[in-house]
Amino acid sequence: MSQYKDMTKEELQELKAELSKQYADFKSKGLKLDMSRGKPNRAQLDLSNPLLDALNSESDMKAEDGTDVRNYGILTGLPECRKLFGDIMGVDSKNVIIFGTASLTIMYDYIAQCMIFGCGDEPWSKQGKIKFLCPVPGYDRHFGILQHFGIEMINVEMKEDGPDMDKIEEAVKDSSVKGIFCVPKYSNPDGITFSDEVVRRFAALKPAAKDFRVIWDNAYIVHDLTDTPDELLNIFDAAKEYGSEDMFIEVCSTSKISFAGAGVSALAASDANIEAVKKRMTIQTISHDKINQLRHVRYFKDLDGIKAHMKKHAAILKPKFDAVTDGFEKAFEGTGIAHWKKPNGGYFVSLFVMKGCAKRVGQLCKEAGLTLTSVGATYPYGIDPDDSNIRIAPSFPDVDELKLAVELLCVCVKLAAVEKLLGE
Amino acid sequence: MSQYKDMTKEELQELKAELSKQYADFKSKGLKLDMSRGKPNRAQLDLSNPLLDALNSESDMKAEDGTDVRNYGILTGLPECRKLFGDIMGVDSKNVIIFGTASLTIMYDYIAQCMIFGCGDEPWSKQGKIKFLCPVPGYDRHFGILQHFGIEMINVEMKEDGPDMDKIEEAVKDSSVKGIFCVPKYSNPDGITFSDEVVRRFAALKPAAKDFRVIWDNAYIVHDLTDTPDELLNIFDAAKEYGSEDMFIEVCSTSKISFAGAGVSALAASDANIEAVKKRMTIQTISHDKINQLRHVRYFKDLDGIKAHMKKHAAILKPKFDAVTDGFEKAFEGTGIAHWKKPNGGYFVSLFVMKGCAKRVGQLCKEAGLTLTSVGATYPYGIDPDDSNIRIAPSFPDVDELKLAVELLCVCVKLAAVEKLLGE
Repeated sequence: MSQYKDMTKEELQELKAELSKQYADFKSKGLKLDMSRGKPNRAQLDLSNPLLDALNSESDMKAEDGTDVRNYGILTGLPECRKLFGDIMGVDSKNVIIFGTASLTIMYDYIAQCMIFGCGDEPWSKQGKIKFLCPVPGYDRHFGILQHFGIEMINVEMKEDGPDMDKIEEAVKDSSVKGIFCVPKYSNPDGITFSDEVVRRFAALKPAAKDFRVIWDNAYIVHDLTDTPDELLNIFDAAKEYGSEDMFIEVCSTSKISFAGAGVSALAASDANIEAVKKRMTIQTISHDKINQLRHVRYFKDLDGIKAHMKKHAAILKPKFDAVTDGFEKAFEGTGIAHWKKPNGGYFVSLFVMKGCAKRVGQLCKEAGLTLTSVGATYPYGIDPDDSNIRIAPSFPDVDELKLAVELLCVCVKLAAVEKLLGE
Repeated sequence: MSQYKDMTKEELQELKAELSKQYADFKSKGLKLDMSRGKPNRAQLDLSNPLLDALNSESDMKAEDGTDVRNYGILTGLPECRKLFGDIMGVDSKNVIIFGTASLTIMYDYIAQCMIFGCGDEPWSKQGKIKFLCPVPGYDRHFGILQHFGIEMINVEMKEDGPDMDKIEEAVKDSSVKGIFCVPKYSNPDGITFSDEVVRRFAALKPAAKDFRVIWDNAYIVHDLTDTPDELLNIFDAAKEYGSEDMFIEVCSTSKISFAGAGVSALAASDANIEAVKKRMTIQTISHDKINQLRHVRYFKDLDGIKAHMKKHAAILKPKFDAVTDGFEKAFEGTGIAHWKKPNGGYFVSLFVMKGCAKRVGQLCKEAGLTLTSVGATYPYGIDPDDSNIRIAPSFPDVDELKLAVELLCVCVKLAAVEKLLGE
């Protein structure tokens, strides 16, 4: 197939007619497909059903330290659960706090705490206009938190090995720049894992703001899809070399390991930050759900248990990711109208279509019964300056549905490109 | 026994010698007793063990509306769980939101939201010095939240049927007074249930601040101890008559129904307040733990199921409360040095000792191995202006332990009174 940009008007018009027919065929099918959110599918959830048997009415409900998990107490989480998450994140148990079901809530609370009480300087809410750096494309819920708190967002382009560190190093010279949200492994949506150099440059940052925070959202820390997974340098190991441990707040959860929205989440931080978070927690709660903590530890046992479990997830997810990227390869080869990365893990495929076409693609898909993540959602304020990025979430639909959805999507991407080239 | 205040110096000195001997005997036993916190005891927790069997790996994990509870979604909680809590609180399901394990966290978040975003006026944090009314004695964790956010606390005395409403009606004329925390049924620590008149006067309040909020912490809503329980007028029914529904935020939880810190909590509020809370929640979380919600609904089924379960709690707790109040009656009859109320429910007995003696009692108890709730903790800033109130939590110790602890406590109360009367 020729590159679309090299086609003559006549060729484009011919192609448009053909694509319009394909699109009309799809439309006539009355499809109802959804590739919008990174939700686990039923088979993945079934993998964790035995977790529900890990504790029953006959179980010993005592934690290793003798705590009855059915009662109040142990603000920071069961020792064995802190150990498990410490092993997952590669930090000491003492630097881990276990929370409720959602790492999103940990991040929201952390930002709220910085707004009201600050983190080593005046409360953020008392410092006038403050700003955060946002690697783009990125995770819409990170942007949601920042917008909610009225924090100005500055786009930082994602490169092949992480965000544009030159830009970040420059931006942090402004003391009103207070932080950055990252998904350092299998980034949402690009599936990019930060290179060792990028992680080291993060650790070496010398922001003008002494209350600068990097929210290291390690959502996909054990979510590999292949036998040759990406390796992420441990941020706290890197930070130790520069004495910058206080700059980093890491979070993760079992939402996409056990049950989505009913798992266990955790924060890892420096001694000083753990103390600050604990201080707020003593007011906010008595203790998080230790029964669910114990259930998870009894079932998964240790990091090896988690890893073995994640291989089962990968076996379910890999064919779905392949369906998406194979579909793209087949449809877009040689057209020059789209690019994407085949990720080694995570939950998304990030598709870049011809500039100025993403919204049109979203509209075409919607009219034919395919729901995508809102186009633009992968950028702060919902504005993709290139109108190019589309986030694909392959996990939830069946492979057959997915293949159909990808076919339809590809027709829409092509049609939008042709319309654009024809100046329509 | 004579009233202590009528005793001669010689009689008091004789009594002191006798009490000192009794105290020394207790001290020599090397006791380790704790009546400090309102924690359920093991037998109570055992009551809910079958809850752990309500969902297992073979269970249907679909909610009534077909939602797979193992996956993301349903921000405000499962419809059947909202129904159950609506029935508990006597409100429509649409006015209920289900949260995580702790109503304390709901209250913290609500105050935080008012501080940062306001509730019908400028954010509280932008309105200069603001104040809350605090019925005293009251719940230390309410005071903790207010102190944490820098909200000034004003004591309002508890009367036999609720807080001093004359004082409240007067205080709310000040527009910097933004709200009040209450435990309207079996108040913490007095065990007082607000009379219908008090509830109606709350509903009829016309505060100068249009962003005034009453946090109606109905922690002991179904926590009756006797067959003649107190009846609390439904605050939203009362508010309806005055069009003041937006003034009330009610919370409750199953922490002392199922498992402490691993139950389900809920908020009830007007349509407008539900919308405001939901708006914040869309940013803060994806969904709360629907597996735990379904587990609770499958096990308790309905309000009748909850009530039947609470009768079992009462059967365990009643003898403990009796041990405390019987002990007090026996020890203090005719002495005129202490008073208390025998509550029909809740988790505490509130003992008032001779003014200026409570701290000394706490010290004497501590030195003899009995831990009490920190004396003063039942008042804002930990300051009991009369140095008189001691909160007794009878739930956790065994009855025998409890009897011993009460005996020791009574000796300490008497000894402190005699010391005081002797001018020591």
